[in-house]
Amino acid sequence: MQSLAVRYAIHISAVFALYLSGLMLIPALVDLYYDHDDWQIFAVSALLLGGFSSAVALATQSRDVVASPRFAFLLVNMLWFTFAVAGMLPLMASSFQLGFTDAFFESVSAATATGATVMSGLDTAPPGLLLWRSLLQCLGGLGVIAVGLFILPFLNIGGVSYFKIESSDIEDKPFARFATFAVSLLGIYLSLVLICAIAYAAAGMTIFNAVNHAMTTVATAGMSTHDTSFVRYTDTPAVLWIAIVFMIIGSLPFSIMILFILRGRVEALRDPQIRVFLGYAAFFSVAVAIYLRITQDVPFFEAITLSTFNFVSIITTTGYASSDYSLWGAFAVACAFVATFLGGCSGSTTGGIKAYRFLILFRLMANGLRKLIYPHAIVTVRYGDRTVDDTMQRAVVLYISSFLVIWVALIILLAATGLDLTTATSGALTALTNVGPGLGDTIGPAGNYATLPDAAKWFLAIAMLLGRLELLAVLVIFTPGFWSR
Amino acid sequence: MQSLAVRYAIHISAVFALYLSGLMLIPALVDLYYDHDDWQIFAVSALLLGGFSSAVALATQSRDVVASPRFAFLLVNMLWFTFAVAGMLPLMASSFQLGFTDAFFESVSAATATGATVMSGLDTAPPGLLLWRSLLQCLGGLGVIAVGLFILPFLNIGGVSYFKIESSDIEDKPFARFATFAVSLLGIYLSLVLICAIAYAAAGMTIFNAVNHAMTTVATAGMSTHDTSFVRYTDTPAVLWIAIVFMIIGSLPFSIMILFILRGRVEALRDPQIRVFLGYAAFFSVAVAIYLRITQDVPFFEAITLSTFNFVSIITTTGYASSDYSLWGAFAVACAFVATFLGGCSGSTTGGIKAYRFLILFRLMANGLRKLIYPHAIVTVRYGDRTVDDTMQRAVVLYISSFLVIWVALIILLAATGLDLTTATSGALTALTNVGPGLGDTIGPAGNYATLPDAAKWFLAIAMLLGRLELLAVLVIFTPGFWSR
Repeated sequence: MQSLAVRYAIHISAVFALYLSGLMLIPALVDLYYDHDDWQIFAVSALLLGGFSSAVALATQSRDVVASPRFAFLLVNMLWFTFAVAGMLPLMASSFQLGFTDAFFESVSAATATGATVMSGLDTAPPGLLLWRSLLQCLGGLGVIAVGLFILPFLNIGGVSYFKIESSDIEDKPFARFATFAVSLLGIYLSLVLICAIAYAAAGMTIFNAVNHAMTTVATAGMSTHDTSFVRYTDTPAVLWIAIVFMIIGSLPFSIMILFILRGRVEALRDPQIRVFLGYAAFFSVAVAIYLRITQDVPFFEAITLSTFNFVSIITTTGYASSDYSLWGAFAVACAFVATFLGGCSGSTTGGIKAYRFLILFRLMANGLRKLIYPHAIVTVRYGDRTVDDTMQRAVVLYISSFLVIWVALIILLAATGLDLTTATSGALTALTNVGPGLGDTIGPAGNYATLPDAAKWFLAIAMLLGRLELLAVLVIFTPGFWSR
Repeated sequence: MQSLAVRYAIHISAVFALYLSGLMLIPALVDLYYDHDDWQIFAVSALLLGGFSSAVALATQSRDVVASPRFAFLLVNMLWFTFAVAGMLPLMASSFQLGFTDAFFESVSAATATGATVMSGLDTAPPGLLLWRSLLQCLGGLGVIAVGLFILPFLNIGGVSYFKIESSDIEDKPFARFATFAVSLLGIYLSLVLICAIAYAAAGMTIFNAVNHAMTTVATAGMSTHDTSFVRYTDTPAVLWIAIVFMIIGSLPFSIMILFILRGRVEALRDPQIRVFLGYAAFFSVAVAIYLRITQDVPFFEAITLSTFNFVSIITTTGYASSDYSLWGAFAVACAFVATFLGGCSGSTTGGIKAYRFLILFRLMANGLRKLIYPHAIVTVRYGDRTVDDTMQRAVVLYISSFLVIWVALIILLAATGLDLTTATSGALTALTNVGPGLGDTIGPAGNYATLPDAAKWFLAIAMLLGRLELLAVLVIFTPGFWSR
């Protein structure tokens, strides 16, 4: 790694922080509108961050650096870290006065669109602060898509390269291609947030709640403006079904949505990962609804709404809850545990292992079993009508093995801070997959991360960052080879 | 699959059952010696099984079948199933009068050298019955080594092929090679059991307990003649350390022990999996000992004995307990959970994922990370001084992914029978790795499988069989390709 490259990565991060300081003016204006004193916090934070980041940006100005995988890895890590640190400022300074650890945890959780929270008393919290969390999540969700579409594919991370945007899909000129695509993405993403907010408001939410929830729904992020998440909307099924629809939309591959919406390419929807994702979401929703109908004697429409809302929320790595599903019985709890691994599609706002990796893994397994019987058979792994080459297969396997190794290591670290086995296993899992709520009495759907030991909060925050960057993009910067010249 | 092959596999299984009926005469004689009426149960069982299996063996006599992978898969499944069913007879008929499900569970658990039990009141149980369980375990352990050395390597299961006995290691003539090796294996295995029994007796066990425990120690199986396993020996550290030594010996690769003991090949001991296995066993033993010393103020020698005995017992997939480690605190419980995955070496009596697979997986991961930085680097995966080829890498990945998929599916199935999350996750895991005890109030180290629902017992018994045959050897017979002609 050249020091010039490090310098240039710092420069870009500083420019990014400058934009973030501008973003702080939105909650400042909202607090002013609602006549809440916290507007000053946001104004001062914006000023401080803006001044500091301008200084750093100026001090690190340099010639453009030749893009290399190492530079891209460094940059993407640095951007996300900057995002999380910038997000902390108002959280520490606001009337909530979160401590350093809590503010870092909350900010990382928001920026990574995870949705785990250490804050309670949200229903009476200053509106600017609530909006700031939602803005972080909304921007985080957009960042996840952008990284998934424009950066990770070219770094061959975890098999995402397979979903590289083909030049035939867009334009001929590289720059035009990137710019058009980025603008389309931004347009579609913000339109979805807007439509979702209107739908929520039409179904009975206040405008403020509708806007906040729309931002955290489309980003499949999961923070709410209520301590009890969506529990208060259980009597308004329309709200729950609107959430279900937009969580699912946020989990679809945005490159395909762009091709479909802007170019009317219907055949793009045939991407097999969409079927797999919708398949397992439907499976868990229906299975648990039947279980609720039988064991708890819940009327069927209520059961399917409860089950679909909460399981789509877990599978899309959103993390809303309309009920404490940890009390639904053993089968539902085990399903919630397993569903936490899943995730949505590539190039979406979701975390988790994701549908296409499961698809490729199952194809690999089927081929492996076939080869045991016919050792000399020549078998290829297919994804849709394309062949999955060896590099791609290895990338998927590398991702899944790293996921499991990190998960196991985290379980031990979290247990060393004193967390019980259920909290440690589900907490490590839900952080790595950016879902949010875990299982057990403390961090379950009705719980909160506030009471965890500080060390556990740091481990979990790091896990969220790892998960958000598909693990490998973070791990790689800790290998000795990365820093050698 | 040809019907002739099925017929021949049935024939061999029947001959095997005939041998097992002969084995039943040992507990019959022991019950006679101790003047216990149950001797009749064993005599009648032997007569029935002997008669039935002779009839089947005669009826299915046929020409030799050309050995093929499919025939080997079918045979190895059928042999283990025969073993489990034959083991049931005395359990159902004895004064304990186990029901059909319980007898199947107990017999599978014994034959697969798992060690989970549904029986209590062992301390006053008929001696023949206790001996029968130990004999099943001892023979099961031997079977595991034999399958791991002579069958699985040639079927390319889960990367075991790497440990194929090289002809240079043995003799020139194929038959002589197999026969010499099998005799050496039997000799070493039985000598180990004998030495272990003498050591136990010298340290203060009664002869009967010493013989029974020696059989289940060397087989890393884990059934005891006491309801409380090794708790009563906590004041006799010598017994615990003898167990530790022999559990570790049972976890080493027997092919290497044969080369070392019979041919003085010291360099064979350099097999890297031995270092990895001893490394993680030492790591968990010491880490938990320090934790016990600090948190529970246990004197250091006591702490290291407690920790080493119980963690070596889990890691070697034995399953003895000298204390209820589920009460040692969060860190120890999480370590016990993680340790359940590990296992010993290839060609040993242990289950679990095993040291060499972890070693290869970590090498694969390190190479994968390196390739992210240097996409065109040519990297090879090494094991000791040999290169791990692509087929072997795929076999390891296939095994580990199948392990995880089956584990997750089992968790959901077990939860559907009503087991809580801790019992379901740890029960599924401990059955697949043939460890024995799980975590939680029911099946923890101080617990028992008796109260589980019948359906859960069947799922767990199937999981033990799957784990014992390295999963793939069982899965393969459920693929459509297996049965086509």
